[in-house]
Amino acid sequence: MGCSLGLALKKAGHFVCGVDTNEVHLLEAIQRGGLDSAEPIDSAIAQSDLVVLCVPVDTIVALLPGILDQIAPHTTVMDMGSTKFEICDKVRSHTRRQNFVAVHPMAGVEHSGPGAAHVDLFLGARVIICDAQQSSSLALNKVLGVLQEMKMKVIFMDSDHHDKQLALVSHLPQFIAYALASLNDFDKDANKQWTELGGGGLQSSIRLGKSDADMWMPIFQQNKDNLLQYVDNYINQLNLLKDLLEKEQFDLLRAYISKANQNYERLHYQNNQPRPLIPNQGAPKVFYS
Amino acid sequence: MGCSLGLALKKAGHFVCGVDTNEVHLLEAIQRGGLDSAEPIDSAIAQSDLVVLCVPVDTIVALLPGILDQIAPHTTVMDMGSTKFEICDKVRSHTRRQNFVAVHPMAGVEHSGPGAAHVDLFLGARVIICDAQQSSSLALNKVLGVLQEMKMKVIFMDSDHHDKQLALVSHLPQFIAYALASLNDFDKDANKQWTELGGGGLQSSIRLGKSDADMWMPIFQQNKDNLLQYVDNYINQLNLLKDLLEKEQFDLLRAYISKANQNYERLHYQNNQPRPLIPNQGAPKVFYS
Repeated sequence: MGCSLGLALKKAGHFVCGVDTNEVHLLEAIQRGGLDSAEPIDSAIAQSDLVVLCVPVDTIVALLPGILDQIAPHTTVMDMGSTKFEICDKVRSHTRRQNFVAVHPMAGVEHSGPGAAHVDLFLGARVIICDAQQSSSLALNKVLGVLQEMKMKVIFMDSDHHDKQLALVSHLPQFIAYALASLNDFDKDANKQWTELGGGGLQSSIRLGKSDADMWMPIFQQNKDNLLQYVDNYINQLNLLKDLLEKEQFDLLRAYISKANQNYERLHYQNNQPRPLIPNQGAPKVFYS
Repeated sequence: MGCSLGLALKKAGHFVCGVDTNEVHLLEAIQRGGLDSAEPIDSAIAQSDLVVLCVPVDTIVALLPGILDQIAPHTTVMDMGSTKFEICDKVRSHTRRQNFVAVHPMAGVEHSGPGAAHVDLFLGARVIICDAQQSSSLALNKVLGVLQEMKMKVIFMDSDHHDKQLALVSHLPQFIAYALASLNDFDKDANKQWTELGGGGLQSSIRLGKSDADMWMPIFQQNKDNLLQYVDNYINQLNLLKDLLEKEQFDLLRAYISKANQNYERLHYQNNQPRPLIPNQGAPKVFYS
């Protein structure tokens, strides 16, 4: 994701300086044209107008206060984490809180590393800014400017509401894909042909099972309460559907499937609408929660 | 699926005659070039060398014995159903059993009707022939000829083993997609933004939720025992994963996600292998079970 962002920012004319503990990734990002230079963290922070944290959410929580301590007064920091409450909570009372903008771009793929980077990963995608009331107009405008250059669609949201929503639409699907992909039945001799027989349906259902533990374990941890509530609701739905099939209540089963069809259509319709680009709106006037 | 098959068969030079209770679909299939003519069922059967049943699996069970009663001695009947045991069992003792070949093409999309048809739907896909020992060489050769023209990869399997395997790799993913898409949480006011926020992860996870009840209810019904066993195993996996997260057992959680990653890779590797085309093998010599 860092390299995709670098590609997009460099395309927009920015000078992009990269920091990574993985030197192979740094080199690969430079070779792919996603970075102008690689630097130690202190010198990178010292020379940047905008510091972007593209790291797992537990690392964001660990690094963010120290980076805010360190930056010049005009420097803005944004993150790209998939959770928002704990990150915002961590710096709620920081004297530089207004230099920070909490950002969640709704874009990504199941692959990781610079090899999976794409210059248009963010193009037209939604991006959520959380607790924007706690960021300065200067910081917000700098971040909005960059997001507009990438033609992203900005949504404002409270960080606690963000985490509840994302538990439903993102963290739950991830959780259940891991559970499906880990079924012991795949290990059984009697099922040794499963990889040969698994078609498009199985492929799309376990696609998220590819995603990295380093990225997702901290997301699950930070959003544990919301996520586990939805997992319980989902298990209840499975038991309900199972019961209808066991008891051969086909009228109710048909109604159940109908509802699934409708929800699919609602999501499909929404995702096939042309994505309106954000106007040049300066600091936000309206907040959703 | 019928129209996709018609497109492929006509491309290979066959004369294709269609039967459907839905006259709009018949007309659409003719307009799309998937049929040469539309006929009442009796005259279609009378003039065909190969009768193909592209209907829900309960309708296959209902129609198949009568069609076998009716065909000429040289006529072959094949089905395209996603379950196989009950269909094969229904005609196990039929005097024309050897005229029937039980076929399951592992191809399809979540959309239905002639509008979703594609001439290359079957190209390079796997196709399972069940209980081939009970089909005549004449019938098998006729069916293999057609499947080879469509460049499908043929696998032989016992019908009861087929249903167990498909419950795992196809019917379970379908079942759980319906359960996810039917979550009551999507109806709640607090979650009204879910369609806007649902990204690629949610989309691929509920893609199968689009599929038709008429097609899937009879599949679930015919394969109920196998399917419900896997649903139980899946719910156990969800509870195990939930427990690891609740108790914050992160080493075990990491191992769990690792296993999911590996199973994804196994499926991904298999599905990215070049698909060997079937040789001109005549009647099969080897049976898998």
